Amino acid sequence: MVKNSLNFSTVPFENIDEFARRINDEFESGKVGYFHLPKGSKKLIEKASVIAGEYEYESVVVIGMGGSSLGTKALYTLLKDKAKLKAYFLDNLDIATCKSVLGSINFNKTLFFVVSKSGTTIETITIFKYIIDKFGIKNFKENFIFITDPDSNLEHFAEKHNARIFHIPANVGGRFSVFSAAGIVPLLFLGIDTKEILKGAKACKKSFFDEKDDSILQKAYHFVTHKSAKTNVLFSYGDKFTHFNEWYVQLWAESLGKRCEYKRVGLTPISLIGSRDQHSFLQLIMDGTKDKTVTFIKVLDWADKDSASNLSLEFLDSCDFTNGLNISEVLNLQCDSTMRAVINEGISTDLITLEKIDEWHCGYLIYYYMLLTSAAGIMLNINTYDQPGVEVGKRILKMMLSK
Amino acid sequence: MVKNSLNFSTVPFENIDEFARRINDEFESGKVGYFHLPKGSKKLIEKASVIAGEYEYESVVVIGMGGSSLGTKALYTLLKDKAKLKAYFLDNLDIATCKSVLGSINFNKTLFFVVSKSGTTIETITIFKYIIDKFGIKNFKENFIFITDPDSNLEHFAEKHNARIFHIPANVGGRFSVFSAAGIVPLLFLGIDTKEILKGAKACKKSFFDEKDDSILQKAYHFVTHKSAKTNVLFSYGDKFTHFNEWYVQLWAESLGKRCEYKRVGLTPISLIGSRDQHSFLQLIMDGTKDKTVTFIKVLDWADKDSASNLSLEFLDSCDFTNGLNISEVLNLQCDSTMRAVINEGISTDLITLEKIDEWHCGYLIYYYMLLTSAAGIMLNINTYDQPGVEVGKRILKMMLSK
Repeated sequence: MVKNSLNFSTVPFENIDEFARRINDEFESGKVGYFHLPKGSKKLIEKASVIAGEYEYESVVVIGMGGSSLGTKALYTLLKDKAKLKAYFLDNLDIATCKSVLGSINFNKTLFFVVSKSGTTIETITIFKYIIDKFGIKNFKENFIFITDPDSNLEHFAEKHNARIFHIPANVGGRFSVFSAAGIVPLLFLGIDTKEILKGAKACKKSFFDEKDDSILQKAYHFVTHKSAKTNVLFSYGDKFTHFNEWYVQLWAESLGKRCEYKRVGLTPISLIGSRDQHSFLQLIMDGTKDKTVTFIKVLDWADKDSASNLSLEFLDSCDFTNGLNISEVLNLQCDSTMRAVINEGISTDLITLEKIDEWHCGYLIYYYMLLTSAAGIMLNINTYDQPGVEVGKRILKMMLSK
Repeated sequence: MVKNSLNFSTVPFENIDEFARRINDEFESGKVGYFHLPKGSKKLIEKASVIAGEYEYESVVVIGMGGSSLGTKALYTLLKDKAKLKAYFLDNLDIATCKSVLGSINFNKTLFFVVSKSGTTIETITIFKYIIDKFGIKNFKENFIFITDPDSNLEHFAEKHNARIFHIPANVGGRFSVFSAAGIVPLLFLGIDTKEILKGAKACKKSFFDEKDDSILQKAYHFVTHKSAKTNVLFSYGDKFTHFNEWYVQLWAESLGKRCEYKRVGLTPISLIGSRDQHSFLQLIMDGTKDKTVTFIKVLDWADKDSASNLSLEFLDSCDFTNGLNISEVLNLQCDSTMRAVINEGISTDLITLEKIDEWHCGYLIYYYMLLTSAAGIMLNINTYDQPGVEVGKRILKMMLSK
């Protein structure tokens, strides 16, 4: 189960009813593809499973920027214990990282996923060509799988070389694409149960669209109407959430930082990992300007159940209060106590509890966040699914280089 | 050289003169210890070098929360190419991470640094005791070095066991402690040239205090007085800055999120890595609410000088504009073009250029950021060096556990 407790006052349903209708319209219109992927990607899994059987490999490298790799990386990091293979991600134009990754793999036993929605992401293609040169690749069928929009130039290239291609549906945006081939195919090849991921997503979809659970709408409404707190902190307890948080930051920032006619609007995401960041950003939340809301995430039942030592060391016995406790439970208590402290300051918080970390719960969580983003976008009256602002820098870069 | 170009209007020196005097007073008073570490830590290096020669080990594990490990981690990640050994960091109460790190080291060839300023940081001591149990440790002299405040309980424990101890000066706060034993000793044991780090720091100190370069004061003043932009984005180009950025986030948030009498003040730090996050957070900066300043960091001369491929692939020739270029230079051009795009939106930016990444430049950069933080703290009229807000959660945790 995934539970979300809102520690702020909610509004009568009539206040959010219009937004519920509008998100339903988006859903029905078919223009926003991700809503339907929990069902739509089932066939994809069948197709990919067959193909996965044809390959022999021991590691996977995903080459992709932003939404083309972040969702996969988030789920891989959360579900690493269940993956059968090691995955690497080339998600930056950083040549040192690139060389380090390529130096630690066995090329002949590695499957590369080249993921680019547009098909011409400059970083992705530059890295791809670097790899071609490095390994002198002639045959793209053996080690490469291409994931891109139908009819993109990358697809044409792959077709020409008889290489494997999977499509990201045209109506699914990069940062909403983790349940499309962009995420599902690499995760499946890594040995993760992608059917269960989709089942979790489907459960969230059902809860929202069929059972009319209004907690997502209430939360989005609170975030959007909380005029003095336009920064939303996601405080997830446990290192496994590191890349999930990065995925959230991209989803939230790129979807909700927009112009609405001549006005600029936006909600700013911040990623924190507990308990670590209690020793960092927490001070600013507690005593700084009250311009933030805080969402806590905790996992009730962690797989690792090691107990803290029962040792009582001389001079250090003031730290004995964790003795003998399940260390993961101490982490959860740190989450509870920090949330309590933040609430006491009169700051809006909410708590997402996952029963455990498995495919189902992760699928649910990811879908939950995409719905939350869609809801906030509708309430901000913006186009949640485009990213016009990132094109300017690209144009300037091309101009600089053409000189 | 380290250069900082400010792309916003500066103020006449008389506007910031008072703050320059107050930071000088802080410097002279001796109450803020970090200012003097570039000189003060020289003896420490001599002492630590002798001791380092007595150990034989192949990896280093640093156990420490927040400021007790972040500075070391930042410098280690920046200077990894120069380190002779592999370092691991246990900086979270995450048992899965802890087990994974302990599972990948050879205990008998590993040197553990237990770093805690107070000496009783609950996460640090809990992990320390976990390790004692796991490896059945009786002798703390062989594999452990303790770094803590003089007269802390951790020091008394270490003394009792005849173990090695290094002191963090009492007037040096955790997040300002990287040039004290907390950072210098582990880095020296890792084989990094700590003398050069201090030399770089000293050059920055000289530029600020002796040569009266006012760019740091101008920048702090701009950040503090820019009423509509209380969020400061650090956009560093290159993966190597990942943990430097985390260090900055802690330094900035924990130092500048404070109450000034009954008022809450604070500047919010955000960490971005380029070019990766051009595909993420950038959209929010470009089109969202103009409530942010952006500092770009780029390295002029990267060690890796690989060129982009000269291949022109069918259908993908629109990406040929990077062909044959030094890939790191493309990264720098991405930095330039993104900064240009952000400036065009009328957003305050500045650019820090490091000639290259080596000990000297990293020492300079770290000292620069500590000075910037001190200056902003004085202008906000707060105590930059305490962290009262993080104690509340700890008290609640103890209360919960005593039930």
